[in-house]
Amino acid sequence: MFVREMSHYECFSVVCASRIGRLACCRNDEPYAVPIYYSIAGNCLYSFSMLGKKIEWMRVNPKVCVLVEDVVSSREWRSVVINGIFQELSAEGHWRREYIHAWSLLEKHANWWEPGGLKPASPEISTVYQHLFYSIVISAMTGRDACDQDR
Amino acid sequence: MFVREMSHYECFSVVCASRIGRLACCRNDEPYAVPIYYSIAGNCLYSFSMLGKKIEWMRVNPKVCVLVEDVVSSREWRSVVINGIFQELSAEGHWRREYIHAWSLLEKHANWWEPGGLKPASPEISTVYQHLFYSIVISAMTGRDACDQDR
Repeated sequence: MFVREMSHYECFSVVCASRIGRLACCRNDEPYAVPIYYSIAGNCLYSFSMLGKKIEWMRVNPKVCVLVEDVVSSREWRSVVINGIFQELSAEGHWRREYIHAWSLLEKHANWWEPGGLKPASPEISTVYQHLFYSIVISAMTGRDACDQDR
Repeated sequence: MFVREMSHYECFSVVCASRIGRLACCRNDEPYAVPIYYSIAGNCLYSFSMLGKKIEWMRVNPKVCVLVEDVVSSREWRSVVINGIFQELSAEGHWRREYIHAWSLLEKHANWWEPGGLKPASPEISTVYQHLFYSIVISAMTGRDACDQDR
């Protein structure tokens, strides 16, 4: 098996082709990782979440890492690591334009608000639960490509 | 879609049934996430890696988070979050027994040393590259189960 570093363009292609990433954040030197749905546009990932642990932690420390993979088999896969900064998008004021942009990108997909939009025991999304849009501004992106033949 | 918290036993079953996790670690309040192969036995995950960023970081801060998923579809999935402590296993001295245990667990699988055992541009694993076994001692495990019908 050969493993090689991917170019920025190749990494971008992998991230564009997927909708699921694994987001890692940390607080007080303790890491936390969860799956997220996202859309990518320009230099940002856009996502949606209920209020909860990851939002609380990212509000305190906005540095995040997002892992995106394209796995064909155990010997053919591509893996991209994104470093970025969490930015909460408010429906009002300075971030309103970005908020609407996030909504427009995410609503193109059925069930775009799952799994971020649900909490245990909530049968369906509801205004009872507080939810929010956020972006991750990409500061670095690196990736590896593994396959049986040297490309 | 219904989402519910899983019991410890259910989480354990999901982790036992998989071999791939996403490991998050952090240093200086910066998170880092990568895919890993693992085997589970007792209260530990066992894995293998070349020396590199994640090992350097976990040596400084051994707190880690491992995400394990069982995704059937976008509306049927299980997701487990493990909190644990990294422990490097030496082939000699105090950790020798654990080191051999890790090896015996991991060698049961073909290609068990991929992707942790390869670096870009290394055609195959080699003694030229320093590699090591490590365990993650599980301190907490929580999970969510999503499906279209309330279970």
